[in-house]
Amino acid sequence: MSTTYGKNLKITIYGGSHDSEIGVIAEGLPRGFKVDIEKLRAFMERRAPGRNAYSTKRKEPDIPVFLSGMSDDTLTGETLKAVIYNTNQRSSDYSNTAFVPRPSHADFAARMKYGDKVDLRGGGHFSGRLTAPMCIVGGICLQYLESRGIYVGAHALCVGNEYDRYFDPVSVTREELECSARSDFPVLDPLSGEKMRAVIEEARLSCDSVGGIIECAAIGLPAGLGEHIFCGVENRISGIVFGIPAVKGIEFGRGFEAAHIKGSENNDGFYTDGERIFTKTNNAGGILGGMTTAMPLIFRAAMKPTPSIFKEQDSVDMVTMTNTKLSIKGRHDPCVVIRAVPVFEAATAIAICDMLFDESEAEK
Amino acid sequence: MSTTYGKNLKITIYGGSHDSEIGVIAEGLPRGFKVDIEKLRAFMERRAPGRNAYSTKRKEPDIPVFLSGMSDDTLTGETLKAVIYNTNQRSSDYSNTAFVPRPSHADFAARMKYGDKVDLRGGGHFSGRLTAPMCIVGGICLQYLESRGIYVGAHALCVGNEYDRYFDPVSVTREELECSARSDFPVLDPLSGEKMRAVIEEARLSCDSVGGIIECAAIGLPAGLGEHIFCGVENRISGIVFGIPAVKGIEFGRGFEAAHIKGSENNDGFYTDGERIFTKTNNAGGILGGMTTAMPLIFRAAMKPTPSIFKEQDSVDMVTMTNTKLSIKGRHDPCVVIRAVPVFEAATAIAICDMLFDESEAEK
Amino acid sequence: MSTTYGKNLKITIYGGSHDSEIGVIAEGLPRGFKVDIEKLRAFMERRAPGRNAYSTKRKEPDIPVFLSGMSDDTLTGETLKAVIYNTNQRSSDYSNTAFVPRPSHADFAARMKYGDKVDLRGGGHFSGRLTAPMCIVGGICLQYLESRGIYVGAHALCVGNEYDRYFDPVSVTREELECSARSDFPVLDPLSGEKMRAVIEEARLSCDSVGGIIECAAIGLPAGLGEHIFCGVENRISGIVFGIPAVKGIEFGRGFEAAHIKGSENNDGFYTDGERIFTKTNNAGGILGGMTTAMPLIFRAAMKPTPSIFKEQDSVDMVTMTNTKLSIKGRHDPCVVIRAVPVFEAATAIAICDMLFDESEAEK
Amino acid sequence: MSTTYGKNLKITIYGGSHDSEIGVIAEGLPRGFKVDIEKLRAFMERRAPGRNAYSTKRKEPDIPVFLSGMSDDTLTGETLKAVIYNTNQRSSDYSNTAFVPRPSHADFAARMKYGDKVDLRGGGHFSGRLTAPMCIVGGICLQYLESRGIYVGAHALCVGNEYDRYFDPVSVTREELECSARSDFPVLDPLSGEKMRAVIEEARLSCDSVGGIIECAAIGLPAGLGEHIFCGVENRISGIVFGIPAVKGIEFGRGFEAAHIKGSENNDGFYTDGERIFTKTNNAGGILGGMTTAMPLIFRAAMKPTPSIFKEQDSVDMVTMTNTKLSIKGRHDPCVVIRAVPVFEAATAIAICDMLFDESEAEK
Repeated sequence: MSTTYGKNLKITIYGGSHDSEIGVIAEGLPRGFKVDIEKLRAFMERRAPGRNAYSTKRKEPDIPVFLSGMSDDTLTGETLKAVIYNTNQRSSDYSNTAFVPRPSHADFAARMKYGDKVDLRGGGHFSGRLTAPMCIVGGICLQYLESRGIYVGAHALCVGNEYDRYFDPVSVTREELECSARSDFPVLDPLSGEKMRAVIEEARLSCDSVGGIIECAAIGLPAGLGEHIFCGVENRISGIVFGIPAVKGIEFGRGFEAAHIKGSENNDGFYTDGERIFTKTNNAGGILGGMTTAMPLIFRAAMKPTPSIFKEQDSVDMVTMTNTKLSIKGRHDPCVVIRAVPVFEAATAIAICDMLFDESEAEK
Repeated sequence: MSTTYGKNLKITIYGGSHDSEIGVIAEGLPRGFKVDIEKLRAFMERRAPGRNAYSTKRKEPDIPVFLSGMSDDTLTGETLKAVIYNTNQRSSDYSNTAFVPRPSHADFAARMKYGDKVDLRGGGHFSGRLTAPMCIVGGICLQYLESRGIYVGAHALCVGNEYDRYFDPVSVTREELECSARSDFPVLDPLSGEKMRAVIEEARLSCDSVGGIIECAAIGLPAGLGEHIFCGVENRISGIVFGIPAVKGIEFGRGFEAAHIKGSENNDGFYTDGERIFTKTNNAGGILGGMTTAMPLIFRAAMKPTPSIFKEQDSVDMVTMTNTKLSIKGRHDPCVVIRAVPVFEAATAIAICDMLFDESEAEK
Repeated sequence: MSTTYGKNLKITIYGGSHDSEIGVIAEGLPRGFKVDIEKLRAFMERRAPGRNAYSTKRKEPDIPVFLSGMSDDTLTGETLKAVIYNTNQRSSDYSNTAFVPRPSHADFAARMKYGDKVDLRGGGHFSGRLTAPMCIVGGICLQYLESRGIYVGAHALCVGNEYDRYFDPVSVTREELECSARSDFPVLDPLSGEKMRAVIEEARLSCDSVGGIIECAAIGLPAGLGEHIFCGVENRISGIVFGIPAVKGIEFGRGFEAAHIKGSENNDGFYTDGERIFTKTNNAGGILGGMTTAMPLIFRAAMKPTPSIFKEQDSVDMVTMTNTKLSIKGRHDPCVVIRAVPVFEAATAIAICDMLFDESEAEK
Repeated sequence: MSTTYGKNLKITIYGGSHDSEIGVIAEGLPRGFKVDIEKLRAFMERRAPGRNAYSTKRKEPDIPVFLSGMSDDTLTGETLKAVIYNTNQRSSDYSNTAFVPRPSHADFAARMKYGDKVDLRGGGHFSGRLTAPMCIVGGICLQYLESRGIYVGAHALCVGNEYDRYFDPVSVTREELECSARSDFPVLDPLSGEKMRAVIEEARLSCDSVGGIIECAAIGLPAGLGEHIFCGVENRISGIVFGIPAVKGIEFGRGFEAAHIKGSENNDGFYTDGERIFTKTNNAGGILGGMTTAMPLIFRAAMKPTPSIFKEQDSVDMVTMTNTKLSIKGRHDPCVVIRAVPVFEAATAIAICDMLFDESEAEK
């Protein structure tokens, strides 16, 4: 199973959690760019499971193997093919989910769509594990953007009801964007991080789960990226961000709050220092008319709590069509928000590269 | 200027507010379907400006002219080409916006992207007027979906801080979905509507503007529409919804609120009556794993307040690169939320048709 | 009715011979490029009907009107929209073709596909007239390529059995490529041209028609354009060339003849003068592995004789399902090869631009 | 490296001759269709090398391994992922080709495009071996088409100057279409086959190579497949057929010959038996206006002689930029036409399925 994103930088992700491999095919990556493989692995490691008490115990190394498009750590311009071999398949835990769908999981809809042939072990092709290949390409894009002075970063803005402080939409710094890469808990304020850990631990102990909001920003963008109507920045970022499992909402700049304030408050007046033009506020989140303004790009995405909880739940045996109870076993994060932070960075970097590459040589 | 949406039902919208025409080209509409043209015009009329005190005074008839793809009111299967001729161009009002961008409007980004050749009169290719061609195709899709027992409807959930009641995510009815089509103010609760009118009038009198939230739902959908990762229901709906100017956020089902609750509260347990499977709650908004569940599809979108306000604002003369003040003249809605309601219905109907048509004959 | 070509330079052509207009929408043209409008009109004129005894008597001015994307004769980078208004519709001549399909014309297949709603007057959406919008964009592309030192030209290689001389695949010059633009009969050898005129005149007098072969070449191309497998030069050129009505075959370089010779004869050995690498022969037609070699790009396309002949023909009344005879009236070229020559130049220029623009800024 | 074909049935092929695997990802295959795996393997076997004296000695099993999209030999509707593991890599033979390009091979253009990072061993991503994954999907499509009464077949029409007899364009039978599947030499007339074998053997003995023409036909097609201008049958078939290495030309129906005859001879008059409409001749090759007519679909493609010959050839050392001689070693077919026959059947079946699936459920 695969699926494709992008116009200039085109990625296709395939495989499922219990296939022998998962992978990504990417066309349009910048030829000749030298990738720092150690840095890429460190980036991948931030998403990998089994690192601490707050994530699933399953231990997969998540090491990308490049089958083509990469030579001497340099992108050849040929299509990139990278795989991650699944080394730790344990399908038996999932045996009773075959016909009893897990509430709020993809099982039910997949069974309705594909019938009884679809393999749903471990989430099948709907598993969060599919975000690992996205991180391979995204990690490369992040490095490439850095080489052009563009920095992308995300943090856990909240877990449950515990909030970190927000990125400043006008003055967010590169250092703040890198907060998540530097620590083992992706927040700006370590104290908020402690509180979030407690919320997650509490969810784990009560056999429950918890969601959260991730905030993502990019600085150093030129003005004018994105195109109007269906190819705007918001369309293209949401087009990839909703590809991350459990995302149920996205908002740019002031977002839903903008619905409640006046135009005179929401509008960002322009100023100039004689050289460049900027705004003193940034309710637009760096986007007007679907195009970047060169102010920081800001968005937030809501993730629902992990649907796989260990409490007994109502479900239906789809073979006998009778009501039943379901108890989920196996390995599950009580909160995927923390591990998802680098995935949002990856997704955003891919979307930005795709938009950067709109500009063909003809337009130079 | 044009731009394209869709995979099976492909639409391209082109033209600008002050071109001689705006239009849409659509491939993949259902051949042989008979369109109720009167009903389509009535639908278009809901979006048209100049109907009442709450919208801009500009009077455009917004009558779709079908140049191909339609014969005897029936879709021939050929590509549909429909235009709306602009009859009421008044460009002089916008003369001073040529080099002084309007805060929070597309002007600035468009000028940065396209340079001084771009024609930004009346919003140019970034005008909300471009949603009219979307309504032509969307209006046809709404009729087609109805013929298959699928109903789509939207309402103004809030304007500023005045809220209508929510659609019930489990039991929303066809009658409720049609509330907006039946009245001149698209709300479920007329009393809320009165309060919203007051909010808009107050904004108008204070030379200001106000935003709001639109809620949209669809019932009668089969389970299994949408595809995973980048072709999910959320990706595809947000891909078209962010094509509506002023939209700054979207959320599905419980949306951002899901970030704050436990899995045990957010999960929708399954039940069966022996024939079909449903959920007693619908926090998922009818979508799991990017696919429909056959429960009502629910989403909400936030619209920022109209950026064109009559209060004096800070801006920059982009030629002299000096700070200046801008006073906007011309015709502008103090609130676009009301007129946007049918546009959301149109956009949703197009996205649903595009997903319905994923299923090729081969899969029967 | 419309249809789309291209990856980076994307064109959509719509309209039919007897609609009020035909047009083209193009995204990805080089921003800031100044178009020589007089030169473009002269180019369009080469395709226009009614110029001489050898083409249809119908007189359409074929003047492109630019609705967007062009300002002060300069491409703004916004999507180009250009139309040609049909001023000379005479539908009555076609009345009896409504149910009696014309042999070897699109009528029959269109009726089978679209049923009785399809409007086939004058060829409808299958008319050769649809190549006029292709020439608008192609004419612009030709000028742009020239500005980069790339020259594209075509000539009538044969009409019936009368042959012009071939382009020399190694040393074809810019002057030879421009032979067709300079004269009113597009051949290298004027004597051959005289013989072709006689063949056409003879066909006309005998109420018959005649086909031919067009040869097209491009010089000044860099090596490495095109991509392997499905995005090769041949795939992309044939993808647009088969969009020209009446084309039944295409061959690159030595083409079908290569099937009959040995590898040792067909292979083009490499040589160098110390600075660049070239081949002494060019059986490859400038393409290896789907990519350009920087040697002249050469291809030939076969056009069948115009199907609209005035001789009585066998057909079927599709309503009564009985055999009948058909006599076609109206205005028809006895040979479309001559007028098609600039269309091949346009198509080739569009395909080359699309391939040039594969190279995103990232790859610089 | 990968590349994509198709609109409804979308295939992406990746890998190179000396990668550890080559493969295909296919979206849009008919869900629920049961594949006869033995028949598929037998089909693949027809393309596989090393079977007889007429093909390369390299022995690869070419066994497709299905990683997803197939369960109990049935297409699940999920994206198909199939790989062929390369088991017999011998890269040392190609060492001297790294900087001395092989005449008429992709080496030179690839090096010019991708620089010295590209891996060209064994043809790299330009190898004919990439047609094996195309045969996996094509083999499935052939079976699916058969289940709907559509039969596709090809034969070697000529090798060098030895010709088989042509398919009868009006009355070609299913039995004739299956001639290639039934024998070990894909011709209608065994005597012609004997002569072709002699031609190939003679080429092999003289360290040379030979090309040929393949003719392909399909019967049982409904009328009206394909769409006009850029989505016609010819565009779509040539779009995949030029993805087969060494193809230099394609013609439909009467093809290049049509250029030399009169309209009155080329036109196919219509007849009816009261139930269906047909033509007594089929110079159109079953295609009018880019759409099928329900008469047999016929096309021919020219393949150049294998560029890898053992005779000494002129080339250039691209490092020192000096003229040099090249002697190719390794394993090479003196003629790829024979093995290519099933590849044309596969390509045609994929293109036909893609067109069949144009018709969405909406049009029923």
